[in-house]
Formats: sequence, C-alpha cells, structure tokens
Amino acid sequence: MFEVIAFDADDTLWHNESNFQATEKQFAAMLAAHHSEEWVRQRLFATEMRNLRHFGYGVKGFILSMIETAIELTEGEIVGSEIQRIIEWGHHMLSAPVELLDGVAETIPALSRSYRLMLLTKGDLFDQESKLARSGMGEHFAAVEIVSEKNTDTYRRVITRAGIAPGQFLMIGNSVKSDVLPAIEAGAMAVHIPYYTTWAHEHVPDEVAGELTRLESIRELPEWLGRG
Amino acid sequence: MFEVIAFDADDTLWHNESNFQATEKQFAAMLAAHHSEEWVRQRLFATEMRNLRHFGYGVKGFILSMIETAIELTEGEIVGSEIQRIIEWGHHMLSAPVELLDGVAETIPALSRSYRLMLLTKGDLFDQESKLARSGMGEHFAAVEIVSEKNTDTYRRVITRAGIAPGQFLMIGNSVKSDVLPAIEAGAMAVHIPYYTTWAHEHVPDEVAGELTRLESIRELPEWLGRG
Repeated sequence: MFEVIAFDADDTLWHNESNFQATEKQFAAMLAAHHSEEWVRQRLFATEMRNLRHFGYGVKGFILSMIETAIELTEGEIVGSEIQRIIEWGHHMLSAPVELLDGVAETIPALSRSYRLMLLTKGDLFDQESKLARSGMGEHFAAVEIVSEKNTDTYRRVITRAGIAPGQFLMIGNSVKSDVLPAIEAGAMAVHIPYYTTWAHEHVPDEVAGELTRLESIRELPEWLGRG
Repeated sequence: MFEVIAFDADDTLWHNESNFQATEKQFAAMLAAHHSEEWVRQRLFATEMRNLRHFGYGVKGFILSMIETAIELTEGEIVGSEIQRIIEWGHHMLSAPVELLDGVAETIPALSRSYRLMLLTKGDLFDQESKLARSGMGEHFAAVEIVSEKNTDTYRRVITRAGIAPGQFLMIGNSVKSDVLPAIEAGAMAVHIPYYTTWAHEHVPDEVAGELTRLESIRELPEWLGRG
C-alpha cells in the first residue's frame, strides 16, 4: 500500500531537542547572577519566536537568539568572553556526534529494502545535511527533502514530486503539529512517535493529539506496516 | 535544444555581494579605533573560511563570524551594544527589499514562456526562500533547488531529478567556480554573466575564466539562445 515512507529527522531519528535543552541549561547558568533560570528560558523563547521570521529554525538562529537575550538580560553588561562561549556551544552543537534514537540503526536499513525512504525535515539546510552525514544513515534514503516549513502545501508538493498518490505516502515523526496533522490534511497517512520532550513551539492541545495513530518506538513500525 | 534553464540567484538575479560588502564596511568602521579596514577584512575573511564547515553560506553565519572577529580583534573589549548593532545589521540584510539586477524583471518572465526555469542556488535555505519571495520572481520558476554546495555531483543530481539529459540543461550564473565549471563538467552548458564584484572565496584564476561563454547582461540571453 505505501510506496514512500518519509521520516522526520530531529527527535525522530536522532536526539536533538535534548541538545538544545542542555545548551539552554548552560545558558541559564551563565546568567544565574542576573536572573532565575525560568525567566532566562522565557526571555530566550520570546527572542526565538520574534526571530523565527528572519532566522528560521536551526542552531545558528538559536545562537544568535541566545546572544541577543544575553545582551538584553544583562543590560549590555555581558562581556566578549561570555559571548565567545555562547558561540562555542553552537560550534559544539554543529559538530558533535549524532546520537541515533533506540531502534533506528536496525529499523531504517530493514525498511529501506521494501520501501523508498525519504528524509523530510525542516530546519537549516547545512545543519541537517551535516547531521545526516554524521548519522551514517544517508545511504538508506532514496530522497532527502529539507524544507523551511512543514505545512499542508509542503506535503502536497513533496508527494507530487515523488510521483505518487497521497495515499501511498506515509509520514513518521515526533511532532503532531509538523509531521502528523498537515500530512493527514494533504491526504497521506501519518504515524506519531513521541519524543520524551517537545519544544514549546511544537506543542498541541491534548484533545487534538489524542486520536492519532501512535507508536512508542520506531521498533514497532515494521510490525505495524505488516498488519496494514 | 535546452529544456531547462537554471539560474543562480545571488549576484545573478539580484544584488547580494554588494550588501555583504556594505555591511563589512560598517563593521570595519566600528573597529576603526582598533585596526585598519584592511586588517579587519582579512581577519573576518579568515574567520568566515574557518567557520564555513560549521555554518555553511548565508547571512546568519556571516553575522556570527563578524561577532567572533570583533571579540578577537578587540581582545574581548567589545561591548553588548556593539554586538547588538552587528546583529541588527543581520536582521536588516535578512529583511531588506531584494534589488533585482538590470534586465531581470523583463527577461525572466519572457524566458519562462519558452523554457522550464529553475532557481539553483547555494546558501541558507530560509534566507534564499525569503529572498525569492521578496523578489517577486517566484511564479516564473518551475523548480527551486537550494543546495549546500554546487559541485559536479550537485549538477548531476539536479539534472537527473529534472528528468532530462545533461545537454538539455543550461546554467546561468556569475560564479565561474560554482555555476560554470562544475555544470560543464557534468555535461551541461553554462553561460557566465559576471557581477561587478566577486567574493574572494569564489575567485578563479584568469586563465581558467578566459575561455568560457560569457554575456555582459541577462538582457543578451534571449538573443544568444535564438542564435543557438
């Protein structure tokens, strides 16, 4: 029934949000003399949201938002060496080994023998290509689509470009808002595999998230496909 | 003969390098009390090259490289308000109106009636999509390919994906290194339309650049195509 299985990348194939949250923790610790951790997080989130229309998603925009927030929260008192430290966190995030989620290393190669696999992710182009290369999973994907936003139009365009009908397209991802709802709206099927933590920007109300097809781990996917 | 005409974006369809150079001038002026303009430019370029493997191309990486260079060249003495100013230059570059090069507004719509036009550009995904939207030229392009690097493999992949033979693909761009040589290597045809200034990273020796098909302006392209 399915011709193409598309996977989200961050927090679906490999850990990502946890890296951002670990860096946020260091950031709050740096500013602890000025403000509480909670307030630092709130201000950083507000800066990120304000900057999204200029920077898009990804590590570089995150670093710039941390720098802006640090200047704001210290009323310009932050010193060069601290800003340098923020930038070094960014370099680290962009070059650290990619840590696959449990089950990915076995399931992806196995599925690639029966389906055309696609990596479909939003974010920074350079950043995502680099993570795919570092993940060692690149060879199993027949197509890689890195997009600036995942809405219904995005799914329609990607499905058309793959030369298939919407019903032949299955989307797998951890975000109800980006991976599941717009794919279903475009006529495709989607499976939600939650990650243990979700970026505030990707939250959806529980009543919406309640009725979806959901698996606990990518390990359950081959069996679920077999049952279809 | 040609089925697809692909255009580079920055400095082929719209001004770009000139915006970077204008910002670099402001940056050198900010640091004028510490170092000569020439030295600031040299150090900034060295930072950009070192960061390319983590940041890729684009405005966000450029801002981060300016901030790093400013910290280095002031030995950490740079203050928050100056860093904030650097970030604001970035916001401005990412939201300013896109200024089309002479002849683009007439030639692109005219060519789109006879050919499938493609935008083929390297750089930051979010940044390039935003510029295409701001340019008002988006509707004339049948395909948009934003890639992290333009080498021979990139051209082969894009040509295969377009479902045509290499000989049916014509590439137009201002960079001999990124637009012309690798496209020819992939079996396609390429036309060089120089921009008045070139980023140091894109320079090629004159003897290589000497033998290529070259037009002075995009305005000459329809006539050149007619002669073929």
